[in-house]
Amino acid sequence: MGGTKVALALGNAAGELLARDIFPTPQSGDSGRDLDHIAKRARSLAERHEIAWRRIEAAGVSLPGPLDREAGILLNPPNLAGWANAPVGRQLESLLGVPVGIENDANAAVLAEWRFGAGQGANDVVYLTMSTGVGGGIVLGGRLQRGIQSSAGEVGHLPIEWDGECCACGMKGCLEAYIGGAAWSRRLAEQTPADSGVARFAAGAAPTPEHVVAAAREGDAFALGELDRFNHYLAWGIVQLGFVLAPEVVVLGTIPSAAGEALCLEPVRAKVRERLWPALQDTLRIEASGCGDRLPDYAGLSVAIATAQEAAD
Amino acid sequence: MGGTKVALALGNAAGELLARDIFPTPQSGDSGRDLDHIAKRARSLAERHEIAWRRIEAAGVSLPGPLDREAGILLNPPNLAGWANAPVGRQLESLLGVPVGIENDANAAVLAEWRFGAGQGANDVVYLTMSTGVGGGIVLGGRLQRGIQSSAGEVGHLPIEWDGECCACGMKGCLEAYIGGAAWSRRLAEQTPADSGVARFAAGAAPTPEHVVAAAREGDAFALGELDRFNHYLAWGIVQLGFVLAPEVVVLGTIPSAAGEALCLEPVRAKVRERLWPALQDTLRIEASGCGDRLPDYAGLSVAIATAQEAAD
Repeated sequence: MGGTKVALALGNAAGELLARDIFPTPQSGDSGRDLDHIAKRARSLAERHEIAWRRIEAAGVSLPGPLDREAGILLNPPNLAGWANAPVGRQLESLLGVPVGIENDANAAVLAEWRFGAGQGANDVVYLTMSTGVGGGIVLGGRLQRGIQSSAGEVGHLPIEWDGECCACGMKGCLEAYIGGAAWSRRLAEQTPADSGVARFAAGAAPTPEHVVAAAREGDAFALGELDRFNHYLAWGIVQLGFVLAPEVVVLGTIPSAAGEALCLEPVRAKVRERLWPALQDTLRIEASGCGDRLPDYAGLSVAIATAQEAAD
Repeated sequence: MGGTKVALALGNAAGELLARDIFPTPQSGDSGRDLDHIAKRARSLAERHEIAWRRIEAAGVSLPGPLDREAGILLNPPNLAGWANAPVGRQLESLLGVPVGIENDANAAVLAEWRFGAGQGANDVVYLTMSTGVGGGIVLGGRLQRGIQSSAGEVGHLPIEWDGECCACGMKGCLEAYIGGAAWSRRLAEQTPADSGVARFAAGAAPTPEHVVAAAREGDAFALGELDRFNHYLAWGIVQLGFVLAPEVVVLGTIPSAAGEALCLEPVRAKVRERLWPALQDTLRIEASGCGDRLPDYAGLSVAIATAQEAAD
């Protein structure tokens, strides 16, 4: 579930996605009514694909923003009006008649990459996502690490400089203030030369990181410089994670996945090699998302699988 | 076990230390002979305190440097000549007739603080030690996090600046290059004013962080400035850990424990407040070691307890 759309997916423990539905996030102002609508669409999705509801063992919900997982409550999501303190878990359980688990989106995403994506087979996996902000999820020893208030893995706020660029979170010098989409777009609005490929791709609109990636593919000098800066700060964040966690796999979603090997993954690996111990590098893989466009589906499915397992224990 | 001395302790699962022996690390050049000597002292320690050897359930060894825990092998310890690739675990098992576990010293220390010290009752605990270098151990969800090659928690090498001060590890800008004892002592040798309290405490010898703490207690301006710098970089490292792990307790051993509340812990907490989210601060305790001088004893005991539990499972 996101601020603009809801993606429903039906799948099994083997990772087969059987059915899918996407629709605009209902935001009537009354989260109970909205959840009722979502539950009805879930039931009708199963029906349309001739999957008997009694075969559904559990549901998993990937949600933006801070949440109280034990209580199944979404706290204060920035992009979901009327959903503050919504008892999403309990209400969906009563509407769907199955156990329902909720996780924040970065935690759900790392579960998906660990179970079905680039982190398959590894014990220790970190997933980094770079969209408006920068988020992360951590699996260690095959277990999701949530920390206090599900706040572990807030890698977007790793301090790059003690007193550096202002961040949307109110602090200064956070990684997100250098490579988050919102901060980067503000920078691009100020600095994009009118004759650059980035401006051409933006075609009069505000330039975004996506335009940078598109222009860099054509060899645009400004775009390549911007990506180099992005890769540098991203590598810095990965080095911090490397020394704290010594993970086996760091999975990079969104922008790095879109930019690909030559423009992002290879340069990031090279920069990480400059600063991380050889022993830690040798065993660290830095990879693009293995779930790709299906990540939201696998994220929900992974939470559902974990919820079914917990219910069985 | 360290480069200069071996501390033996006999204790029980309740954390009672029953007997103790300290002696210089045997370094005959033949680790087998050295381990035989250590095992004999362990048996005679029990005998002297009238503890029947059959009551011993397991032994735990806290060792410096990288090790292969599964195989029970110490790899290449910088300060233990003749011990490279020593099969410490297996050999002590045959000499002592009980299961033997080995851990690197920072990992053993965090187990001790979590079980018996300042991290008691918490799920997520980080221990930081600042002696020659800077090391760390991490317990999450009540489990020691080792990472690849037991290298998780190498917080001494968190990057403070991408291209900053040279570190003994060969990289640049590591936390250890700013606040590790060796780096700090080199800095003090260059910068200590002859008329400062630090020089007075050093009394002609090379000034050390201990002299800084002693002079700062008397209000010496140079010493207070040096501690302020130390506290700043230490806080920076803690903020990095805070955003990655969202731990409940960060335990500070060695220098901060010696410097105490007013000179170190309070200023560090204040600096962390500048850069870590309020939600993460509210639930984060930053504390001096709870085991204090007995940390080495509790470290070995904690590894022994974990080893006995594993053997029982």
